Amino acid sequence: MSERTQNYRITLQYEGSRYDGWQKQGNTDNTIQGRLEAVLSRMCGEPVEVHGSGRTDAGVHAAGQVANFHLPRAAAARQTGEKAASGGSRKPEEVMEYLNHYLPEDIAVTSCSLAPDRFHSRLNAVKKTYVYRIETGPKRDVFARRRQYGLGQKLDVEAMRKAAKLLCGTHDYKSFCGNRKMKKSTVRTVSDIAIRQETGSTVLTLYFTGNGFLQNMVRILTGTLIEVGQGKRSWQSMPSLIETMDRQEAGFTAPAEGLCLERVYYEE
Amino acid sequence: MSERTQNYRITLQYEGSRYDGWQKQGNTDNTIQGRLEAVLSRMCGEPVEVHGSGRTDAGVHAAGQVANFHLPRAAAARQTGEKAASGGSRKPEEVMEYLNHYLPEDIAVTSCSLAPDRFHSRLNAVKKTYVYRIETGPKRDVFARRRQYGLGQKLDVEAMRKAAKLLCGTHDYKSFCGNRKMKKSTVRTVSDIAIRQETGSTVLTLYFTGNGFLQNMVRILTGTLIEVGQGKRSWQSMPSLIETMDRQEAGFTAPAEGLCLERVYYEE
Repeated sequence: MSERTQNYRITLQYEGSRYDGWQKQGNTDNTIQGRLEAVLSRMCGEPVEVHGSGRTDAGVHAAGQVANFHLPRAAAARQTGEKAASGGSRKPEEVMEYLNHYLPEDIAVTSCSLAPDRFHSRLNAVKKTYVYRIETGPKRDVFARRRQYGLGQKLDVEAMRKAAKLLCGTHDYKSFCGNRKMKKSTVRTVSDIAIRQETGSTVLTLYFTGNGFLQNMVRILTGTLIEVGQGKRSWQSMPSLIETMDRQEAGFTAPAEGLCLERVYYEE
Repeated sequence: MSERTQNYRITLQYEGSRYDGWQKQGNTDNTIQGRLEAVLSRMCGEPVEVHGSGRTDAGVHAAGQVANFHLPRAAAARQTGEKAASGGSRKPEEVMEYLNHYLPEDIAVTSCSLAPDRFHSRLNAVKKTYVYRIETGPKRDVFARRRQYGLGQKLDVEAMRKAAKLLCGTHDYKSFCGNRKMKKSTVRTVSDIAIRQETGSTVLTLYFTGNGFLQNMVRILTGTLIEVGQGKRSWQSMPSLIETMDRQEAGFTAPAEGLCLERVYYEE
């Protein structure tokens, strides 16, 4: 345990529409991580680094992203002139309130707690669930439009479900990796892909759960499943598609706006 | 029945955030009515007037606004070179498709049908339901933020329900009229005000149903109910508040973003 800093864990929501994704960029920063670091650094009067459970692409949303950061203990209390809490560390509620006050309205912290010094939101994550929403009907829902892909076309859901089942498991998912120069292992375990459609709704919701996802992987899996639903490829072709290890063979990259990082799981 | 024109009835959704309300304005038009008329006039090659069931204020949304308009019969078919339908009138599906293609993405037509020549969306409306959403919790929902008022404060819902009951009935609602120079009758019948809160949610949803509402009336009723929920006024004071016929005595005008025209009822 560090004496100089206190580790915090936060859960956050964001509507990714107007951001260049999670990961901080150089000078023209317009990222979620950048916004969080700017507010925390302002609060502490010194640079603060924020670690996310994973990078979300430009335009992708989050309902349950998890991040962590270390804040200076005593210095923080000195800077603001506030009464020092136990060991000079800020209360999680105060940190959350400060963040929600200064963050733009499309980023919100929904929980904040003290974390053990060794906790790391990315390294300790054991599982994640992403959700992809597709509007299959001709009508556009003006209130949900920023969160779903307006395909406007009926899909063969049963064929998609059969394909989804074959896409699960522990595989080398190189065919579904957006980064063609990926040097690290592209083996991942996808434990579940569920496809749901509420009665009377034309919105199809795809739930992807796995121990990790490659760059654009959920969007390429979704694009492939959409092509199965359109009859452009058969559900039976999924195993051989995985085997090709060739991105060219898989489906299109479904648009960012339909994707949302729903939940990140940790061992308790 | 007019021989020259065909009457159409549409139901529409809009996110009112970036518009100056329903009603068409002069030169710098940025209204829902203006957008609809522009698209329909373009389709027909001559000016088309759209009648709405009622004006919604700047920033107010609609999930079920109803409007109607007359389109020229034969002329329309000539203009586009399309095959003339029965009597030269356009098919409702075609009109809906055209509108949804050219309207901005925050306005959507969800149904379109042929209407009797005498049908008028405002004059024939017998009842309307407006919904007002209030976020009472400290957390902001980034996905719903454009549709709800972020009060961020707990309210005494039981007191609000008692007050709501006393605000219903057939009354002169002058105290709740935003237009102080209103010359017509300010008597209206509010048949129901329901206040709901889903289990585990901090969002309070108010449903107002009545035969008509005065300018800003739902927002002033909401502001008054919020003040009851805050303990700033008693639920018992509602009858005398109605009796004063004085806008100054009622509560604040709740912000536009929380309000949505949910449904318009007609006699079938």
